[in-house]
Amino acid sequence: MNPRIVEVRKDILKKNDVAAAALRRRFDATGLIVTSLVSSPGAGKTAFLERTLSMARARHRVAALVGDLATECDAERLRRSGVPVRQITTGTVCHLDAEMIERTLGELTLADLDWLFIENVGNLVCPASWDLGQTSDVVLFAVTEGEDKPLKYPKMFRRSRYALITKVDLLPHLDFDIDRAIGYLRDVNPDIEVVLTSARSGQGLDAWYDILRQHVRRAAHRIEEPV
Amino acid sequence: MNPRIVEVRKDILKKNDVAAAALRRRFDATGLIVTSLVSSPGAGKTAFLERTLSMARARHRVAALVGDLATECDAERLRRSGVPVRQITTGTVCHLDAEMIERTLGELTLADLDWLFIENVGNLVCPASWDLGQTSDVVLFAVTEGEDKPLKYPKMFRRSRYALITKVDLLPHLDFDIDRAIGYLRDVNPDIEVVLTSARSGQGLDAWYDILRQHVRRAAHRIEEPV
Repeated sequence: MNPRIVEVRKDILKKNDVAAAALRRRFDATGLIVTSLVSSPGAGKTAFLERTLSMARARHRVAALVGDLATECDAERLRRSGVPVRQITTGTVCHLDAEMIERTLGELTLADLDWLFIENVGNLVCPASWDLGQTSDVVLFAVTEGEDKPLKYPKMFRRSRYALITKVDLLPHLDFDIDRAIGYLRDVNPDIEVVLTSARSGQGLDAWYDILRQHVRRAAHRIEEPV
Repeated sequence: MNPRIVEVRKDILKKNDVAAAALRRRFDATGLIVTSLVSSPGAGKTAFLERTLSMARARHRVAALVGDLATECDAERLRRSGVPVRQITTGTVCHLDAEMIERTLGELTLADLDWLFIENVGNLVCPASWDLGQTSDVVLFAVTEGEDKPLKYPKMFRRSRYALITKVDLLPHLDFDIDRAIGYLRDVNPDIEVVLTSARSGQGLDAWYDILRQHVRRAAHRIEEPV
């Protein structure tokens, strides 16, 4: 990369880290859990989030922010779940940053929420460098994308706590080797927790939701309020 | 986007445009056709290129450059087709640029080639801003990604001459509306030429190859040598 852009980028990323740290302090102060979702375009983030929001809203106060270069399609789709959703349209910018989150959060009262989901722009590269103050990262990759994605986009898989392998209902029609994919995931991140899911068949959604709820419980415990 | 990074980026992109224009002059001087392939991670660029290289090498002198953040997997896979292939490993950089192409081309004798393929990093956002001196852009998107990708990543679809809808062998197992997808493609780029393909079943590959060959013929005609 050009040395001048490397230097400016380093500086901008440092500023983003400061803004993200401030966000994280705000989230921690009210015990808000922030779950970030990243993936390639079309790996199923929105379908997955739609299902998750519908499950979560029965017991928690939930909201979502959703990033895209253009269109409000995803926000419209997610609003059907009945939770507050805000679209962030980035124009030509390939990722969300902490300032965008801060600006958009202005419209929500954090103390009224237990749980915030952030769906990033579909991109397995750039979002890995931008902290948004989230509690944890979830990376999704679809069985239709091939097993080698963790090796090819290691930074994103390395920083994620959970990997959701999505669209597993399509496995019978593909030459996708699930053990090889999990092996590659563990090669780049030995601690990553893997869940096999399908938003269409519902497979893995309950297991996934139970894992996520542990977070909310722990946070609630920290601020000494039952969930 | 931060105003400082916007300014530096504009400057860097301008320098890239100069380097790309110089590449284009070199390509034109020997009548070399350069076809660039872009898509999301896992849309099938490498599988598709593998088939294309095997068809092309029977009648043309072909080579390929392939970009990835990490690994040499794709180059190894493409070398099986028997044509010269060079991997460009970008580290954390989310796109190829003209300088990377120039540096890697150093090892190839352009006058010995009719046709060069460049497979970019899997990313539907960033590569759209970086000219590589190519003759034309091909964007691939898989039926597994959903119909709305052209609307959500308009810049890439707008600058592409061809759109390959890939993995159409999976259509019977998906709720993908092909007419809607083509409609969205034409909404963002009314002139885009659309081909339905499957590297697995072979559907559309002959049609696609015929379209590509027109380019090589035209270029050969321009420098008054029959292909």
